[in-house]
Amino acid sequence: MSAGQGLRLHTYFRSSAAFRVRIALELKGLAWEPVPWQLAAGAHCGEAYREIASFGLVPLLEIDGLRLQQSMPIIEYLDARFPAVPLLPAAEPEKARARALAQLVACEIHPLNNLRVLQYLRGTLGLPEAEVGTWYRHWCAEGLARMETELNRVPASGDYALGASPSIVDCFLIPQLFNARRFELDLQPYARVRHIEQACMALPAFQRAQPASQADAR
Amino acid sequence: MSAGQGLRLHTYFRSSAAFRVRIALELKGLAWEPVPWQLAAGAHCGEAYREIASFGLVPLLEIDGLRLQQSMPIIEYLDARFPAVPLLPAAEPEKARARALAQLVACEIHPLNNLRVLQYLRGTLGLPEAEVGTWYRHWCAEGLARMETELNRVPASGDYALGASPSIVDCFLIPQLFNARRFELDLQPYARVRHIEQACMALPAFQRAQPASQADAR
Repeated sequence: MSAGQGLRLHTYFRSSAAFRVRIALELKGLAWEPVPWQLAAGAHCGEAYREIASFGLVPLLEIDGLRLQQSMPIIEYLDARFPAVPLLPAAEPEKARARALAQLVACEIHPLNNLRVLQYLRGTLGLPEAEVGTWYRHWCAEGLARMETELNRVPASGDYALGASPSIVDCFLIPQLFNARRFELDLQPYARVRHIEQACMALPAFQRAQPASQADAR
Repeated sequence: MSAGQGLRLHTYFRSSAAFRVRIALELKGLAWEPVPWQLAAGAHCGEAYREIASFGLVPLLEIDGLRLQQSMPIIEYLDARFPAVPLLPAAEPEKARARALAQLVACEIHPLNNLRVLQYLRGTLGLPEAEVGTWYRHWCAEGLARMETELNRVPASGDYALGASPSIVDCFLIPQLFNARRFELDLQPYARVRHIEQACMALPAFQRAQPASQADAR
């Protein structure tokens, strides 16, 4: 099979986890077909999506007759399957650091800020919108500070998170910054992060992957 | 260097992310030295730990002159470094599924239930303890239902999550169940999960890794 043939990504334009996978697909130059689900309307909670996705979550990538769930394993699979444009470093120590930076976004920031958590805060807990915003910015600021500290621990060897070319870390970081802006977090304290964002967003792959470029963007 | 020589794990007996790594170390039969931090007293927030850990989080593994952060990359590193007892499947499709099940715990359940989030709910939001418990059980129940669904999609070929031997999935699942019990979640609906737990807890590696077996358990 030729690279990318038959790749279908179950996605939602605003899902930052789906955005990570879209960046990876675009960086690798793969052709892919979007299957959009309107998360804000709860479309992914119905029987139709549950039959496709045991977790009931976006993204899900159909590839090689498989249905892969969770952004991290999807990107790791793509990296092993299409190694021409590597997104993970080859050596184990560097690979561990790359994964740790990606996990910082995936485990420490994003889970506290995704749609169903905000809905719980607003609905079940009845929090006013101002307190929901404060909650969002608290976890995002704390996580980005950790990210900035670790990035600065290693001298920059290029414009991207890990050096001269984009990697899995940029796939995770950039979508989180889109979210941060939506919730009006001040990104001024994170100079290295902002430099990386500028470099990434100058690339067509990131432009094509961003929410506003998606067919389901409303 | 002989297997395990000089391994130091920065840990806290009750941290479920540290518990995951302790299980992996024990399953691989590695000798390791614990460096405990009293998270509940905020010990990890001070300058001393920040100098060791850029993220300021537990666990952190010192190995091969490196300081590895985040449980998932730590376990992936251990699996590449000490392959004799593999914790990840060899083939990419199965590896992707194993990682997805681990990420389900690491990204969808645990981040909403860890210490600093519960402290924010109690402190900043002033939630009564009953509502904190409801919050905990809500996310834990939702995540375990997703886990049970995906585990049952594939017929059991053994007593553990992925078959006849323990894997990275068990490393992530078992600590979450310890947490679930602490917050009095009814585990009755998750038959497959409970069967796996019983099999795992019969093993000395899981017994040695559990919170009550740690030197810093109070």
